[in-house]
Amino acid sequence: MEQNQFLGAQSVRFSQPVYIKESASIVGEKEGEGPLGMLFDQVSKDPMFGGETWEEAESRLQKKTVDLVLKKAGCQKEDVRYLFAGDLLGQSMASIFGLVDFARPLLGLFGACSTSGLALGLGSMCIAGGFAKQVLCVTSSHFCSVEKEFRYPLGYGNQRPLSASWTVTGCGAFLLSDEYSITNRAMITGVTFGKMIDYGLKDSMNMGCCMAPAAADTVKCHLQDFGRTPEDYDKIITGDLGKVGQKVLIDLLSQEGIDISENHTDCGIEIFDGETQDTHAGGSGCGCAASTLSAYILRQMEKGEWKRVLFVPTGALMSKTSYNEGNTVPGIAHAVVIERI
Amino acid sequence: MEQNQFLGAQSVRFSQPVYIKESASIVGEKEGEGPLGMLFDQVSKDPMFGGETWEEAESRLQKKTVDLVLKKAGCQKEDVRYLFAGDLLGQSMASIFGLVDFARPLLGLFGACSTSGLALGLGSMCIAGGFAKQVLCVTSSHFCSVEKEFRYPLGYGNQRPLSASWTVTGCGAFLLSDEYSITNRAMITGVTFGKMIDYGLKDSMNMGCCMAPAAADTVKCHLQDFGRTPEDYDKIITGDLGKVGQKVLIDLLSQEGIDISENHTDCGIEIFDGETQDTHAGGSGCGCAASTLSAYILRQMEKGEWKRVLFVPTGALMSKTSYNEGNTVPGIAHAVVIERI
Repeated sequence: MEQNQFLGAQSVRFSQPVYIKESASIVGEKEGEGPLGMLFDQVSKDPMFGGETWEEAESRLQKKTVDLVLKKAGCQKEDVRYLFAGDLLGQSMASIFGLVDFARPLLGLFGACSTSGLALGLGSMCIAGGFAKQVLCVTSSHFCSVEKEFRYPLGYGNQRPLSASWTVTGCGAFLLSDEYSITNRAMITGVTFGKMIDYGLKDSMNMGCCMAPAAADTVKCHLQDFGRTPEDYDKIITGDLGKVGQKVLIDLLSQEGIDISENHTDCGIEIFDGETQDTHAGGSGCGCAASTLSAYILRQMEKGEWKRVLFVPTGALMSKTSYNEGNTVPGIAHAVVIERI
Repeated sequence: MEQNQFLGAQSVRFSQPVYIKESASIVGEKEGEGPLGMLFDQVSKDPMFGGETWEEAESRLQKKTVDLVLKKAGCQKEDVRYLFAGDLLGQSMASIFGLVDFARPLLGLFGACSTSGLALGLGSMCIAGGFAKQVLCVTSSHFCSVEKEFRYPLGYGNQRPLSASWTVTGCGAFLLSDEYSITNRAMITGVTFGKMIDYGLKDSMNMGCCMAPAAADTVKCHLQDFGRTPEDYDKIITGDLGKVGQKVLIDLLSQEGIDISENHTDCGIEIFDGETQDTHAGGSGCGCAASTLSAYILRQMEKGEWKRVLFVPTGALMSKTSYNEGNTVPGIAHAVVIERI
């Protein structure tokens, strides 16, 4: 048996760090106009990405982003042992048709908008366990494919409450490696996989509230498992709670005696300017946390602004069928410890 | 860095085996009337499993099966570190609502009907890498929820060609452990994760043909990676190719000089009597391979009939949207080496 690398109730601490060798982000025009616009690798003016359907558009976005991360890293697809991937579409169709041409083994994941955390967590475990030297983690979302999948036809022009979030058209791809290099972007030293938490909420137009209890549970468990306090992190960054969910998260944790009000932010809050971009609570989607991690968070770490970050993508677990049948929307969140090289 | 446990192009060989400590299977009435009917732990006469919708029925089936495997193993849910789970419904809703009450970290997976192989593969890696002592792998399908998800309303009474398969109402749950015990059901010693293979087929009523090229690719790669021949396995057992897909698989491999005609079978062929049960090509679904593994394959190994089996669940990657948009149906297959204790 290999050395035990588990910790506390739900966590993993790697005996050797796993390196984020390279990453890439591609987003749509609206994201390009947001506060992080200059930081993404590419901004596409064509929302179809050259495709003929919204689903094909998202697949092409994902394919382009994987091509880009391989190019940036100077790698061939044969240098990647496994693909850890997922998206929000039914039966993960964006990833299937985005990745089929890469001809590498696919380990398909679903954790709604938490999928980027799940992919980085499992990908890191795969490398830290000695099962691969390089793996690729990729997740995406597209505003139009997701509105079609979960809500209303775009042409219907439905009104959105201020608690609603705006699905990010974006993709983030991460090449993980077991090799230290000064040019690595960052390193992953631990993971806390999250439980589903269901407070009985049913409002798919307020996903921040649905997910905040899961984020609070994962953060609390993470700090317990690692014996840390919020001050051990320069930033604790959730995926897509938005402004409404952020308040709930901070409130829930403060009831547990944990104060993250000083060092919390959220990818969904960072990626759009809610005042001018009509995005209401903030950005969401599998591509929100992933593209923000690649473009913004890792850059802040490279600049030395932040040394250790807890990256906590959050997912609202629902389908149009579960919604129409009156089910609740459980939340889930996975936490990944990312440290400066 | 831990000891390297990777092998060849796509495989993992564990330095210490991972044990299938216990397993459970629950199926519907039709499966109970089939050739394996006496072997399942439970056969439910109620297709709704006490629920009010087909989706809730599948969730309840999954919950019952997890309860049962824990009871059989004498374990509490707290003894399970992580849940590796998936199903065929959009956004994995059967697993979400089936497992939310277990309050254990969920690592959600999607590989269509290959998901049981993906779950056993990743769950084994998690234990072999030293990240957990016990994990639980569970996958399910339900004839009625799947017909609704992918095909026509049941009341429409559509005709099915002879190449079509019949989705199994069933669930298999597996408790994996790092501890040797004479009472363990079997052990997992290696995994080959599969690539998506797309031959351009578009016929969702002939999924066996869509998946057979992926099964052939994974089996071929597995034998290469491990330096083995088909004779090293008492049985090579695919998930749900059915009779049409079986012929294609054997033909494709024979073109590569690999003859598995003597020792191949398929869970979809074993679980129904195609002559009398009107199931045409055979059974299919995430629950087909999983329930057959628990009820039949592991029992054959315990009886000493088979010492080493290659278990190769197969998945047809499609959604109703991808089908309606005229996309192809790529296949995927993951291979798990299961050996007698």
